[in-house]
Formats: sequence, structure tokens, C-alpha cells
Amino acid sequence: MNLGRLNHVGVATPSIAEAISFWRDVMGATSIGEPFDLPAQGVKVCFVDTPPSTGSGQATQIELIEPLGDASPIRAFLKKNPAGGQHHVCYEVPDIHVAKAWFEARGVRVLGEPRTGAHGTPIFFLHPRDMGGVLTEIMETPRGNH
Amino acid sequence: MNLGRLNHVGVATPSIAEAISFWRDVMGATSIGEPFDLPAQGVKVCFVDTPPSTGSGQATQIELIEPLGDASPIRAFLKKNPAGGQHHVCYEVPDIHVAKAWFEARGVRVLGEPRTGAHGTPIFFLHPRDMGGVLTEIMETPRGNH
Repeated sequence: MNLGRLNHVGVATPSIAEAISFWRDVMGATSIGEPFDLPAQGVKVCFVDTPPSTGSGQATQIELIEPLGDASPIRAFLKKNPAGGQHHVCYEVPDIHVAKAWFEARGVRVLGEPRTGAHGTPIFFLHPRDMGGVLTEIMETPRGNH
Repeated sequence: MNLGRLNHVGVATPSIAEAISFWRDVMGATSIGEPFDLPAQGVKVCFVDTPPSTGSGQATQIELIEPLGDASPIRAFLKKNPAGGQHHVCYEVPDIHVAKAWFEARGVRVLGEPRTGAHGTPIFFLHPRDMGGVLTEIMETPRGNH
């Protein structure tokens, strides 16, 4: 399996509303999506586009992540990092089940079964201890995107 | 100032040699640079290319960072995160001095004066407490790259 596109960098934040102001006014982002809830994953998310190198094509996004509900997995992260911080990175793959078998065959722990992610395609997470300390999301490339 | 390209995601590692094996054999990276020392910053670095969305253009890189020397700033990070982990993100700007003035005017602490970074152009870091918990590097876009 070849390395896929770096779809996004996930950044946890106590407030997406405040983070949006920061990204617009301080970072100068010109393309910020509408925040939306992902109740099954206990998060509210919002994608910020970073510009591609050539003026065309898709570049890596920043995924702002706010806890949603008391059981949100982001609460523990924010307890340790109250201001927020880098939470995960996400790479694309052509087929989520092929990718799951690939990582399992190499001794990397897959956290749960594939489920629908923020871009509407199947995703799973890999255990950071098997990934050089980096919590890593694997997502199937949205169809029609390439 | 508009948001620039996400040049790289910095990932600290106790061993670039082992991280290269991981990126090649587990992550399936097909384009991995030669590691090199940056003694002035107390780090050894190695860039891994991630594929662009369209088969052309430049995509975000992963910068593997290993401590170099006893005074390396990466040592404290690895003490907290022995397996390594996400260390910083780096955005490009057209002019490093304009960028420095921009962030200072918005109350973001710039850590030190611009100095030469891993891509041979001037860089500086921004204080994570002013950046939503994310240690952020700002680098001048290499000339001829766009």
C-alpha cells in the first residue's frame, strides 16, 4: 500500500467559534467551512482549507474539533491541554478494508471497526503507540474527488 | 496577510533511522529525503513527501525530527513523549519580516529572531499558548518553488 494524501490535521479546541475568529483574523484563512456535529463520535468539527501550492487541486485541511456531549473523547485531551492542541493526522486510502488488513498484518492496532467520518466516508483510527506517538486517522478517499 | 501553504507537519522521533523504516514499510511512503543535521537548532531532520491530490504540485511534508546534541529542544519533548509525537506545524509566507510584524501586531509571541530553517529560508516559531496550543513555525517560501 502506498502512502495516501494527508487529508487533514486534527486540532482540538475548547471553542470552535473562537477558533474560527482566530483562523480568520490571525492566520488569515479565507476558506472556512460551516461547523457541524458528529454525534456518533462525540465531536463538533469545522474544516479550514489551506491553500494548495499551485492554485489548483486540494490541499491539506485543518480540522477543528470541539467536544460534543459529556462522553466526548476530546474532553480528556482538553483536560491535559486546556488551550487545545494538535490531536491527530489523517491520511487517505483507496479502500478502507484493504487498509485495515494492511495495518493489522503489520502489528498496528486498529481502534474499532470502520465507521463514517467527517467527510462522509469510512474511517478508523490507529493506536498512537504503534504509530510513533501520533494518533492517526485513515479515511477512504471521497469518490469524485480526484 | 492570507494563510499560506501548510509546508510540513513536524513529528519528533527518538530515531530517524527507525522512523524511516516505519514510513517506508508501514506507511508506504515512496519519497523520503536524506536525513541531515541542523546543528544551530539542535536537530537532525528528514522530510517525507506525502502525495498531492492531483498528481502534480507540492503537498505537505512530514518532517521527522531527532534530537541533536545535549541541548536539543527536542529532548524535553521526548522525555514527555518517549515514543515521539506531533511537534509542530509549519505554514509558508511570502516575506518573513512582514509575517513577524503581522503576528506581533496581533499579540502573538514570536520566539526569537528569524533564522535559517530546514528548507534554507528564514523561519521563526510562534508561542503555542497564543496559537490554540499548537507550536507553529512560519517559513518564507523557497524562491522558484511556485
